[in-house]
Amino acid sequence: MSTLLEQLIEAFRVLPGVGGKSAQRMAYHVLERERAGGQHLAQVLAEAVVRIGHCARCRDFSESEVCHVCASASRDVDQLCVVETPADRLAIEQATGYRGLYYVLQGRLSPLDGIGPRELGLDRLSARLAEGEVRELIIATNPTVEGEATAHYLAQLARQQGVTPSRLAYGVPLGGELEYVDRGTLSHSFGTRSEIRE
Amino acid sequence: MSTLLEQLIEAFRVLPGVGGKSAQRMAYHVLERERAGGQHLAQVLAEAVVRIGHCARCRDFSESEVCHVCASASRDVDQLCVVETPADRLAIEQATGYRGLYYVLQGRLSPLDGIGPRELGLDRLSARLAEGEVRELIIATNPTVEGEATAHYLAQLARQQGVTPSRLAYGVPLGGELEYVDRGTLSHSFGTRSEIRE
Ligand SMILES: [Zn+2]
Ligand SMILES: [Zn+2]
Repeated sequence: MSTLLEQLIEAFRVLPGVGGKSAQRMAYHVLERERAGGQHLAQVLAEAVVRIGHCARCRDFSESEVCHVCASASRDVDQLCVVETPADRLAIEQATGYRGLYYVLQGRLSPLDGIGPRELGLDRLSARLAEGEVRELIIATNPTVEGEATAHYLAQLARQQGVTPSRLAYGVPLGGELEYVDRGTLSHSFGTRSEIRE
Repeated sequence: MSTLLEQLIEAFRVLPGVGGKSAQRMAYHVLERERAGGQHLAQVLAEAVVRIGHCARCRDFSESEVCHVCASASRDVDQLCVVETPADRLAIEQATGYRGLYYVLQGRLSPLDGIGPRELGLDRLSARLAEGEVRELIIATNPTVEGEATAHYLAQLARQQGVTPSRLAYGVPLGGELEYVDRGTLSHSFGTRSEIRE
């Protein structure tokens, strides 16, 4: 039977990127200096894993049936941005001035892992596009093989419903130096170059 | 009023080395893939911050009044190793074959921060040495300015009670290359060189 301290160290390892050494540091740190903060974390965490579910509209994390973005009256309902994960949604929300709505796949098409259109809720997305409110489907899946395949599928889905699909621009990051950009990105960026107009 | 998800992200920041970005990753990871693990962590953490106190004998973390090391009948009572933190104690326990007992200062002498002998429980340590059971006080405070001052103080304390003080060896790490060892270590190591006997 292990001690409570050993159990605590072990329990911290459930967190991403936390190995034995940092789990130990976390346990000691909380016990030495942050008991109140640790107690607060325990309470919020216990509540979160039970109470946070998924928005019925966009599938993002939400405590309520419909999340506050989907429920907002001040968002543009004619733009819908599709992302793979809640973290991607948050990144776009924080970095851009986008005022439309989102759809969170909670994954990407991956037939070998048994993840098809149904698992990503694409039937519901299709029904939503059929409602006619959405005019542009902004596809922001990741520029990976599976993300691209998913984007391709989503674009077809949009066109079937008379919705314009669009895709984020991918290329050399601003401030990046060509010398240090990976080959794939550089090749893609070169191939999708555009004319400079006056 | 922030959402439960925002509160969770904020709460994770109490952990050492966890900034906004990793707190966010932790929250998403637990919600997406580790709800059971998160629930377990919450429960163990809540229990730990309330139930883990300090051993009355060695001041290390302990759920019981006397920790299992101090309570063990198979440890050598004539050696006492003094360390600054519970993490230091664990490191020695895991790396060496040491079978004596420990004394955890939970700090080091630091007059400017108001940390004197009393705050480190040195009165109790002194009383323990006076009992006559301990024959060697192994001083394993860190090789920093404050750690050295603490070691110096502890050595005097030991001698007053007729106990032999000893200090870990400090120098070039095994497998380390001289070229990459910091100056202070190299200088110390050079100054404390010893004769090679046949
Ligand atoms: Zn929503
Ligand atoms: Zn103890």
